[in-house]
Amino acid sequence: MNLKFILEDLKIDVDLCDDIELDINITGLNTLQDAKPFEISFLENKKYLSQLKVSVAGAIFVTEEFKNDVPEGSIALVVKEPYIYLAKASKYFAPKILEETGAEPKLGFNCTIMPNTHLGFNTIIGDNCIIMHGAYIGDNVTLGDNTIIHPNVTIYRDCTIGNDCMIHSGTVIGSDGFGFATTKLGVHIKIYQNGNVKIGDKVEIGANCTIDRAAFSSTIIQDMVRIDNLVHIAHNCIIGKGSILVTQTGLSGSTTLGEYVVMAGQSGTTGHLEIAPFTTISARGVVSKSITEPKKQWAGFPLMEHRSWLKLQGRITKLLKG
Amino acid sequence: MNLKFILEDLKIDVDLCDDIELDINITGLNTLQDAKPFEISFLENKKYLSQLKVSVAGAIFVTEEFKNDVPEGSIALVVKEPYIYLAKASKYFAPKILEETGAEPKLGFNCTIMPNTHLGFNTIIGDNCIIMHGAYIGDNVTLGDNTIIHPNVTIYRDCTIGNDCMIHSGTVIGSDGFGFATTKLGVHIKIYQNGNVKIGDKVEIGANCTIDRAAFSSTIIQDMVRIDNLVHIAHNCIIGKGSILVTQTGLSGSTTLGEYVVMAGQSGTTGHLEIAPFTTISARGVVSKSITEPKKQWAGFPLMEHRSWLKLQGRITKLLKG
Amino acid sequence: MNLKFILEDLKIDVDLCDDIELDINITGLNTLQDAKPFEISFLENKKYLSQLKVSVAGAIFVTEEFKNDVPEGSIALVVKEPYIYLAKASKYFAPKILEETGAEPKLGFNCTIMPNTHLGFNTIIGDNCIIMHGAYIGDNVTLGDNTIIHPNVTIYRDCTIGNDCMIHSGTVIGSDGFGFATTKLGVHIKIYQNGNVKIGDKVEIGANCTIDRAAFSSTIIQDMVRIDNLVHIAHNCIIGKGSILVTQTGLSGSTTLGEYVVMAGQSGTTGHLEIAPFTTISARGVVSKSITEPKKQWAGFPLMEHRSWLKLQGRITKLLKG
Repeated sequence: MNLKFILEDLKIDVDLCDDIELDINITGLNTLQDAKPFEISFLENKKYLSQLKVSVAGAIFVTEEFKNDVPEGSIALVVKEPYIYLAKASKYFAPKILEETGAEPKLGFNCTIMPNTHLGFNTIIGDNCIIMHGAYIGDNVTLGDNTIIHPNVTIYRDCTIGNDCMIHSGTVIGSDGFGFATTKLGVHIKIYQNGNVKIGDKVEIGANCTIDRAAFSSTIIQDMVRIDNLVHIAHNCIIGKGSILVTQTGLSGSTTLGEYVVMAGQSGTTGHLEIAPFTTISARGVVSKSITEPKKQWAGFPLMEHRSWLKLQGRITKLLKG
Repeated sequence: MNLKFILEDLKIDVDLCDDIELDINITGLNTLQDAKPFEISFLENKKYLSQLKVSVAGAIFVTEEFKNDVPEGSIALVVKEPYIYLAKASKYFAPKILEETGAEPKLGFNCTIMPNTHLGFNTIIGDNCIIMHGAYIGDNVTLGDNTIIHPNVTIYRDCTIGNDCMIHSGTVIGSDGFGFATTKLGVHIKIYQNGNVKIGDKVEIGANCTIDRAAFSSTIIQDMVRIDNLVHIAHNCIIGKGSILVTQTGLSGSTTLGEYVVMAGQSGTTGHLEIAPFTTISARGVVSKSITEPKKQWAGFPLMEHRSWLKLQGRITKLLKG
Repeated sequence: MNLKFILEDLKIDVDLCDDIELDINITGLNTLQDAKPFEISFLENKKYLSQLKVSVAGAIFVTEEFKNDVPEGSIALVVKEPYIYLAKASKYFAPKILEETGAEPKLGFNCTIMPNTHLGFNTIIGDNCIIMHGAYIGDNVTLGDNTIIHPNVTIYRDCTIGNDCMIHSGTVIGSDGFGFATTKLGVHIKIYQNGNVKIGDKVEIGANCTIDRAAFSSTIIQDMVRIDNLVHIAHNCIIGKGSILVTQTGLSGSTTLGEYVVMAGQSGTTGHLEIAPFTTISARGVVSKSITEPKKQWAGFPLMEHRSWLKLQGRITKLLKG
């Protein structure tokens, strides 16, 4: 998408030096950290200022205040509300709901594709896969070998699933992350979710789970992860190898789990945080800050060490008697 | 349905004055407040007595005790357990699971209807809609313009969805509300859910949500509401314009949210209550009483102001050390 | 499956007396309590030692330590990690994802089977059933009379559903229980879920629920149970007659509810426990120990009597003021 067109369409005046070339092709949006020279990024929250200063994004939405922090080589797109403009710009990079043309699905050896399924354009299915009744495999989806997709699963376009995976019925992979910017007048502007979901090998996902596609880049489920039923994984989460997510757990956006993390039943996270490897979160625990020390067990909301939580219960019993 | 027939079928003796005409047509059931002259209502809970006295329902199930409070013009249907009889009567007004005849679906311009979908009788689909693989659009459903129904969505009969909506995969709209009356012997008698769901314009609903149809009248989602994944909205809820419901939130029956309410992740309500406009309920908060003052933030269960909840956490820390 | 083959395939040396016959047919795996003479069982946790001593299982995985507690008539299969070997052995008894041959579906009188449905081999459907668009009825499934399966429901193979049931859209019955054994190196070995789900008569299940099949034997939903939306029932649960499970409740594995238990919204259990008849668990309550006394109401997490929970709230209010 041509940058000049975007700016004109969004009615953004760029304070141009003569040598800035706006007639360039932009391929998408991304975070300050991950944006490449042909992507647009944004600074909404001052705490990412250090990332702004070293970003190699081609252009960056910023407020007047931070205009001069935009590094040389990036074009400062000065606006009053960078996040609103990010949302507005996201639409230009949204893939179509359905491709109109493309290659026919490519199937490996010995696959069983039941009737009443849909395989989109450019899908690639590995050997020995079973795709059951009602399943929807969107455009450009890739499945590895020996993967079983149970009935009525939906996999949105552009997602990838590895070898030896099993996805149980009703699970939805790649639906839009819950992203929007709200104007001062209360209008919610959708941030089109232009990323995808990447699932590794030997992953088993239970029934009626939801794993959202990333806003930019990918939501990632690494190898050997086990997910129970009715679990929610928001956009841009990264689930470390071998992690276990028990029923009705909900991870908010950009939660990163290290290897072998256990999230027990009905637990949750508030998003934009990291959990160290081998951490266990007890049932109903809510993680609202990053956990940096590995191998500990936590519980409660607010979260505390599991032993403190047990101690607290003793104190509460005492309080009740007192 | 003929009232005389219903009463005979349910073996209800009506204490008849000569001038009461039972040979009338009843069109449905409703609350005391909303019932019209050709509907039946009921008084189960004394706290609605004032509504009884001004109801214009055609007939009302009441116990002997409140017989004389039934206003002139309404027929008192005196029974021992009004709620049980309401449940029994609900069956007479239940729409069929599937219509046997009706008009063919009417499609607007430029619609994409994928294979393996079902469009029921009398459905009306606006312009530029996309209805994807596996979706079920029940009888008499209306969709506005530019609305996208993702794969494997189910919309039960009689529901309406506005313009510019997006419904993500696996979401179920219009399933039966969780309504039944339990006899003293423990038999659960289904209250047929004879209402529907009405969704406004520019509403986006995530994956694997459930929005139940109303027992009477409508469950309502107003314009510009945003709903994340795995959210439950029970029968007869009203979700105010621009409200935001984050993942795994559950609203019990007859919850009314004002405009721009935010329910954060895994929050809930106990039903039959109202939440004032611009209220924020923090993650995991449970609302069990109406909130009348707008623009405040609440947390916890039992619910308290968010700042009190923060203070409580400090006290708990102290308790743990003490 | 031949026992000798299994042991050779798993590389297990059995300390054989001359008179032990390994060339026998094993039909499946089971718990110590329920295993029959042609099934294999296991002892992982010392607390089941008394069950070991009276088990009639044909063969039992045990550690060296408990070898001599294996009763006469059972073959001791001595291994370092019995649970790991149970997991490894489960694969031999896993039914195929899809049968390749079998009898055509047998339909009762007056059934409506909509297009885009799948009925597997050997399915038996009673009279007056309605199976709606997108539903998947797996191999060997039996439905009673007058049962309604709403759109996009999935019923995995081998499950049975009684008379007069209603299953709402998106619900998944018979998906795999969340069972695996983790090796010291962190590899999760799937315990194939070789049981099924048995649902009684007059059961109504809401939308987008998940009811997992048993690891061995059956997950059981007794007559007249009412289940709201988005409820999770794990493998090997038994839900007593007339029980009520409100939205977003999650039951962990091997939870047994007595008759007429009420689990209010967003409540849960930690599994391997029993709840006495007529118990009420308030909204958000978590049951982590068996409840033996019937007819009481409980709340909170950790669970306490409901009146204590109310009292606790008073104390907390005081704490906040103090």
